Amino acid sequence: MQPSPRAYVPFVSVDTMMRLVHRIGLSQMMRDLADYIEEDFRRWELFDKTPRVAAHSDVGVIELMPTADDALYAFKYVNGHPKNMKDGLQTVAAFGLLADMTTGYPVLLSEMTLLTAIRTAAMSALAAKHLARPDARTMAVIGNGAQCEFQALAFQAICGVDTVQLYDVDPAATAKAMRNLRTSGLTLVACHTAEDAVEGADILTTCTADKQRATILTDNLVGAGQHINAVGGDCPGKTELHPGILHRSDIFVEYAPQTRIEGEIQQLDPDHKVTELWQVVAGAAPGRSTARQITLFDSVGFAVEDFSALRYIKDQVQATGIAKNLDLLADPDDPRDLYGMLQRAAPDLAA
Amino acid sequence: MQPSPRAYVPFVSVDTMMRLVHRIGLSQMMRDLADYIEEDFRRWELFDKTPRVAAHSDVGVIELMPTADDALYAFKYVNGHPKNMKDGLQTVAAFGLLADMTTGYPVLLSEMTLLTAIRTAAMSALAAKHLARPDARTMAVIGNGAQCEFQALAFQAICGVDTVQLYDVDPAATAKAMRNLRTSGLTLVACHTAEDAVEGADILTTCTADKQRATILTDNLVGAGQHINAVGGDCPGKTELHPGILHRSDIFVEYAPQTRIEGEIQQLDPDHKVTELWQVVAGAAPGRSTARQITLFDSVGFAVEDFSALRYIKDQVQATGIAKNLDLLADPDDPRDLYGMLQRAAPDLAA
Repeated sequence: MQPSPRAYVPFVSVDTMMRLVHRIGLSQMMRDLADYIEEDFRRWELFDKTPRVAAHSDVGVIELMPTADDALYAFKYVNGHPKNMKDGLQTVAAFGLLADMTTGYPVLLSEMTLLTAIRTAAMSALAAKHLARPDARTMAVIGNGAQCEFQALAFQAICGVDTVQLYDVDPAATAKAMRNLRTSGLTLVACHTAEDAVEGADILTTCTADKQRATILTDNLVGAGQHINAVGGDCPGKTELHPGILHRSDIFVEYAPQTRIEGEIQQLDPDHKVTELWQVVAGAAPGRSTARQITLFDSVGFAVEDFSALRYIKDQVQATGIAKNLDLLADPDDPRDLYGMLQRAAPDLAA
Repeated sequence: MQPSPRAYVPFVSVDTMMRLVHRIGLSQMMRDLADYIEEDFRRWELFDKTPRVAAHSDVGVIELMPTADDALYAFKYVNGHPKNMKDGLQTVAAFGLLADMTTGYPVLLSEMTLLTAIRTAAMSALAAKHLARPDARTMAVIGNGAQCEFQALAFQAICGVDTVQLYDVDPAATAKAMRNLRTSGLTLVACHTAEDAVEGADILTTCTADKQRATILTDNLVGAGQHINAVGGDCPGKTELHPGILHRSDIFVEYAPQTRIEGEIQQLDPDHKVTELWQVVAGAAPGRSTARQITLFDSVGFAVEDFSALRYIKDQVQATGIAKNLDLLADPDDPRDLYGMLQRAAPDLAA
């Protein structure tokens, strides 16, 4: 007895995701993802939004990030365990699901460790497209872990960045990033201090992983006209920037209720003015308005971005037929006859 | 290049779940599940509990149900779309995941359409073991859809019920249940009215699927000493019992904050006295205390029950090696080198 076609959910494994990336090209995929996110940000108010649901422990957090529009429902499962790295595990691993709102049936299950890394970088570059100076060409990347290369390549593909200055407390991480990016066409500078990395940079990207209050950027390192892309602070008690920087910056966030809990702005009063980025994308609020302004994208990652990323992968899966099918749903011929399906399967299973 | 063993998540498909059920035996599995639930209910206060996160539309709901103890995290994805049935789809389809709290890595992905049907029935029977009269042998089942046979068999296996009186507004549903249960050893009675089904029954089970306020049981149908197992009301605006019944019953629930939103008691004042079932299981509150008392289990399903069910399946998977492995997690040799893993995969993928 074969399951009905409705019982199957297209599944994008890590292997399948890597095939998709290489088929499309990473730079092209990041540009495409930025377009999908931009499209969904323009209709932001249509989404069912809620702060993510988190289960915290002493060593990390597991989160569910759901959102939906009228047609599609998405959620992502994602962990954050900084101590994982020294045990040889990913700090952040993720998978996600897209479902049909009219039936509740899943239509895509996908790995999202890679996809989150790619969409996070695409989101950062999309924000910088609206917030950095148009002539910004040099970026500092402080924290050269798993997110670093994706950030560098997204800013090259989407913002025209041509020079990346790299710094990490662990020189081996910087060396790894230099090696991985050597054929990218970017001019790469390995730096020995955060000060060196920031020197002359138009865009400052921080993507460190410690679960603690850290001061990756001190107040004196940030000057007029810079855009700060703060990626690493993404849970309560974890920040990267000196509060002085926040007071001198115009702050842009994804979804204020979530960022006030998890982002850099957890250091500020709960009524400190911030602008939601969708307003800038939709033309309802200004982005950068002067060349000397300091702009800050306080990025924590929001469910709508994962919705956009899964929607993009679904379209690619439909176009390429690259996904495998997963026997995830029980779908008896008569929907009221779940028990009959189980009972009738016995001879086949014994065979 | 092969993914590392850590990249794999054991996966229990619908086919694998059916194999497990037939290998263990459905009655044995329901007794085992009741034991696992009872064990977790005894340590109820250790669980991280939250009402489920729901995305509602005009035609249904999609829910995420997370919970965790110190060692394990579980969540279930489940939909509820009453209109699905006439389109040949399941009203309720589900899958779930178990993860390691110390690493955030998933340790089991499982179908849960079948597993939810089985654990729901096991939960109902476990509640009745504590709440129905010990000499209860006859059960009415009103609503003969997908949950009906599982309820009948669970009460047979766990409570010693020997006679089941069936009624559904659609006689074809009753005929289906009679057919499926003919070799069960239960005495079966097909009834033409709810009144006939309830006549002489010690336990009244309602498991209908309409998303609306319905009165499946009117006040006059319920008498002294009966236990009511109300399974079908499980979302805001969906109830099955006349409020008069609620006022005459001692009411037991799984997790009061959720049941007040979704259960029969949404018809009552928010401070109406109810007892959480874990208190009865743990010996902290009485269950049934007199033979004439009317007891009501206002069942909506709670995340801890799914936690117990997934924990049971994990143990069975480890004992039998029956699960397949799913390439769900990106796990590079160097956890900071996600990009390098992607880059190095290119030649293999092209081959």
